[in-house]
Amino acid sequence: MKKLYFTPGPSQLYFTAEEHLKNALKHGVPSISHRSKEFQSIYAHTVEQLKVLLNIPDGYHVVFTSSATEVWERIGQNLIENESFHFVNGAFSEKFFSIIQNLGKSALKKQVIEGSVVEVETVLIPESSELISITYNETSTGASHSQNDLDLIRKSFQDQLIALDVVSVTPSVEIDFSAVDTFYFSVQKCFGLPAGLGVWVFNDRCVQKAESLMNKNMSIGTYHCIPELVKKSMINQTPETPNMLNIYLLGRVAEDMNKKGVQQIRQETNYKHALLQHTINESPYLSHFVEKENNRSRTTAVANTTIDAKLLTEALAKKGLVIGSGYGTFKNSQIRIANFPTHSKEQIEMLSDQILSLNI
Amino acid sequence: MKKLYFTPGPSQLYFTAEEHLKNALKHGVPSISHRSKEFQSIYAHTVEQLKVLLNIPDGYHVVFTSSATEVWERIGQNLIENESFHFVNGAFSEKFFSIIQNLGKSALKKQVIEGSVVEVETVLIPESSELISITYNETSTGASHSQNDLDLIRKSFQDQLIALDVVSVTPSVEIDFSAVDTFYFSVQKCFGLPAGLGVWVFNDRCVQKAESLMNKNMSIGTYHCIPELVKKSMINQTPETPNMLNIYLLGRVAEDMNKKGVQQIRQETNYKHALLQHTINESPYLSHFVEKENNRSRTTAVANTTIDAKLLTEALAKKGLVIGSGYGTFKNSQIRIANFPTHSKEQIEMLSDQILSLNI
Repeated sequence: MKKLYFTPGPSQLYFTAEEHLKNALKHGVPSISHRSKEFQSIYAHTVEQLKVLLNIPDGYHVVFTSSATEVWERIGQNLIENESFHFVNGAFSEKFFSIIQNLGKSALKKQVIEGSVVEVETVLIPESSELISITYNETSTGASHSQNDLDLIRKSFQDQLIALDVVSVTPSVEIDFSAVDTFYFSVQKCFGLPAGLGVWVFNDRCVQKAESLMNKNMSIGTYHCIPELVKKSMINQTPETPNMLNIYLLGRVAEDMNKKGVQQIRQETNYKHALLQHTINESPYLSHFVEKENNRSRTTAVANTTIDAKLLTEALAKKGLVIGSGYGTFKNSQIRIANFPTHSKEQIEMLSDQILSLNI
Repeated sequence: MKKLYFTPGPSQLYFTAEEHLKNALKHGVPSISHRSKEFQSIYAHTVEQLKVLLNIPDGYHVVFTSSATEVWERIGQNLIENESFHFVNGAFSEKFFSIIQNLGKSALKKQVIEGSVVEVETVLIPESSELISITYNETSTGASHSQNDLDLIRKSFQDQLIALDVVSVTPSVEIDFSAVDTFYFSVQKCFGLPAGLGVWVFNDRCVQKAESLMNKNMSIGTYHCIPELVKKSMINQTPETPNMLNIYLLGRVAEDMNKKGVQQIRQETNYKHALLQHTINESPYLSHFVEKENNRSRTTAVANTTIDAKLLTEALAKKGLVIGSGYGTFKNSQIRIANFPTHSKEQIEMLSDQILSLNI
């Protein structure tokens, strides 16, 4: 039985990914030199398609890392001299916070209970914090910020750098990235690609910050420090031999999404989100984990279960439908369902029908 | 026309790689959770096959990074408090040296001209150097060390850690890894896989060194520091969402190589090496770059050209045979030819015939 993955990343591959992978093999993409013109044009194509798809403002640099986890470390090395401030509301925002501490820097946080988001208006951030970190969509809990939150923070903190985690949300939800100085994601979520590639976007304020730390003789890392990444990106290359296959696939999938139209993807996301909300409302086994409707993620539906979550995931798995378990301590008491661009309306409808017809 | 890549990495995919990639897609490998039992068994299989193939001594840990370049940085963070010593004889050994300097640590080097290797007997290494770095096969020049060199260094420097770069040489050449404390490679060379995965192997002395630096409150990195990598490897996982597809493919290709027999691969390597040596001897356009026969790489043949190297590479490219240009300043005056396990005797014979019949 062919399985269908509704897990919140890694997830079902984007429906065109396999075809692109076959074409990549046919054209020898994994065998070409990462210093060749052929690869430079692949790199340029991917960046170009991402700029269109995400409406990346002029002057922002697009570079590649191996994961969003790596970006956390690189932000810590390149953009924070002494202190950062983190909005923490779940496992992933907490991990970024811990990484800064592990780098021997001072990380402050405003932490709220899982399933909620930090209320931006109430937060006091010291002037000494050089960078403010927000996780748009906390994949572990399904709690989501909004553009309004970003705009409020930007307005209040013009001097600080703002870093936005858009893992598992972009491009499914529209975000005006001019409100932040840097944002990043990995490709195994909404882009439906094999894991092993992170995308890091930052503006010139970030470049200047990294250079200022370097000029103070601080270590900002080596091959993946911002100056090296920018220098190579100018010639459509990477400092190391990168995951060329994934850079190629990302460009192709972003192009497909552009052809489909990002507005269409977002409308479908909203439709499928409404359907999943309805499913949680109607199922006797489920209830919403995120109380405030406005904060419920449109890409990662998270529900409490009245029975052992394993019974639900196993019942659906028997039908070939793979959904996510709760994260960490919620493993047995919650489920998580991805609503990514690869998941069609029909597939989400089928999943909804199956959930609502469960009799355990 | 289907191209055949004899470039020294990225190179031709291992001849079974495409089939394994198709199987991976069929079984949803890119979609499974990196925390699932399914992925844990993929991880365990890959490590097990590598241990057999490379005869990795007991007590050595096998972990995954995104590239060999990343391993350079991680060695610098985890295994060097103040000072390292590098055998430098080309671009790649030099890059590792630079990375240590960029980390703000003291890197010493013994540098010899490109095309040669450091004569181990003549090197004076201060007791203060905590780690000695050797590049077995300098891919930029085709100059190669030998097991004898490793044994000599080990004998003379028992207290220091010895780090061995085996990019573009393992498993094609037999190496007794008990002579070193850590070694590493990337998969786009002899393993014939898409780029984006590094393999890092180290013993418990390395673990202890990393822990001692951590206990001194030094920053040893974050998600990819040795203690985190070891902790996760114990349960066949990685700290971040890794390049799961490549970890799967590496296990399958290593298994294929084990089935074929590593001795067979090495015998074929020697045969093909002899053929390439003969080709360089006989061609009016070529001469050996590495003077000492013993130091000529068995996996990366490098030759000076009597005419612009581009004329040679282009003439061969017209026949679908892609060879490497010289590295860096040697771009127009040298060629490089990979002799990896995926290159069959027949393919190298064909390449040799084509080179020897060139009339430019």
